[in-house]
Amino acid sequence: NSLLKEIDFYLVTDSGLSKKGTLSDVKESVEAGCKIIQYREKDKSTKEMIDEASEIKRICGDRAIFLVNDRIDVALAVDADGVHIGQDDMPIETARKLLGADKIIGLTVHNVDEAVEAEKKGADYVGLGSIFDTSTKKDAGKGIGPARIREVKNAIKVPVVAIGGINKENCRSVVENGADSLVAISAVVCSDDVKKETREFIDIIKEIKNSSSP
Amino acid sequence: NSLLKEIDFYLVTDSGLSKKGTLSDVKESVEAGCKIIQYREKDKSTKEMIDEASEIKRICGDRAIFLVNDRIDVALAVDADGVHIGQDDMPIETARKLLGADKIIGLTVHNVDEAVEAEKKGADYVGLGSIFDTSTKKDAGKGIGPARIREVKNAIKVPVVAIGGINKENCRSVVENGADSLVAISAVVCSDDVKKETREFIDIIKEIKNSSSP
Ligand code: NI
Repeated sequence: NSLLKEIDFYLVTDSGLSKKGTLSDVKESVEAGCKIIQYREKDKSTKEMIDEASEIKRICGDRAIFLVNDRIDVALAVDADGVHIGQDDMPIETARKLLGADKIIGLTVHNVDEAVEAEKKGADYVGLGSIFDTSTKKDAGKGIGPARIREVKNAIKVPVVAIGGINKENCRSVVENGADSLVAISAVVCSDDVKKETREFIDIIKEIKNSSSP
Repeated sequence: NSLLKEIDFYLVTDSGLSKKGTLSDVKESVEAGCKIIQYREKDKSTKEMIDEASEIKRICGDRAIFLVNDRIDVALAVDADGVHIGQDDMPIETARKLLGADKIIGLTVHNVDEAVEAEKKGADYVGLGSIFDTSTKKDAGKGIGPARIREVKNAIKVPVVAIGGINKENCRSVVENGADSLVAISAVVCSDDVKKETREFIDIIKEIKNSSSP
């Protein structure tokens, strides 16, 4: 999927935090130019997840990559573009076998060693985190700091997506340290205007990428 | 899978109710002669479920059919014999497409119409319930009564598995009304001796089946 080379702001859905609901968040974010959506849902039935995922796939169309968090069954059922898996999910080798060579698989990593291992095992990108201290959900706890992004970036060729405690204030340091893309869940889905927030993140990321490229 | 024609007592795991844990329950039940195991787990990570499912598959070997409740991804990851799906799970048409023609798919139904529909859509057996009043989990509420089993049995050719509120006292009426197999979760997994309980259920079911067959 060639869109993977163009990703900047990366939306992860969160129905628990969302103000207007997952489908609205996806729609507004894609309209604002977001090129990658990860559907993360832990509390709904498989049937509800498949229904919602198939709506998200329709919204994304060929404008944005559509990944499903953890649930390879849901990804297969709606023919998503791929999955994002963490350390508590299906092993990447098994996921690759079930999804085939063409699907995108992103893997959560916490350091250089895990990133190198992920690339070796066929990850199409890595989600690196937590960058900053965070108190929410997965990868909670102490942040590794933005300087670590550069180390990881230097060690692998696949895109590095930064995640964890990122907001509009600290996101500059993340991109300046080499992140190809970043996730900022609460900064976006807790907002009244997901479209505007997404747009602003994209603008900041693009500005820094353009000024730092040769 | 030819074992499907021989099923009598049907074990559904329940880590919440289990006294000795899911793996112990499966092992004891299979040793007692149970020929079909359904792994139902709602609260563990995908990785934990895959690890546990692969242990259960090993225990079942060719002695018992091994099905996974709801999670087609887990079933595919460990190459289980099939899945059991309910009304809140993946649509059976999608599940069949992902699993292929040879895997077993069981579907939960509540009446004759749903049973006929399930068979038409390719279900290899139906789980009919709740037979008796029950207060636990899915299919909770008022029971349809054992007499309904005969109606369903007369309407379809695939095996009918009775579920819901069944214990050693009321299980005779279930089998006498035509159930090919039955589930009795709490009666078995809450026991100190899963092997003995399973053995007793199998003995009762076999006795009634033998006395009622021509
Ligand atoms: Ni039901």
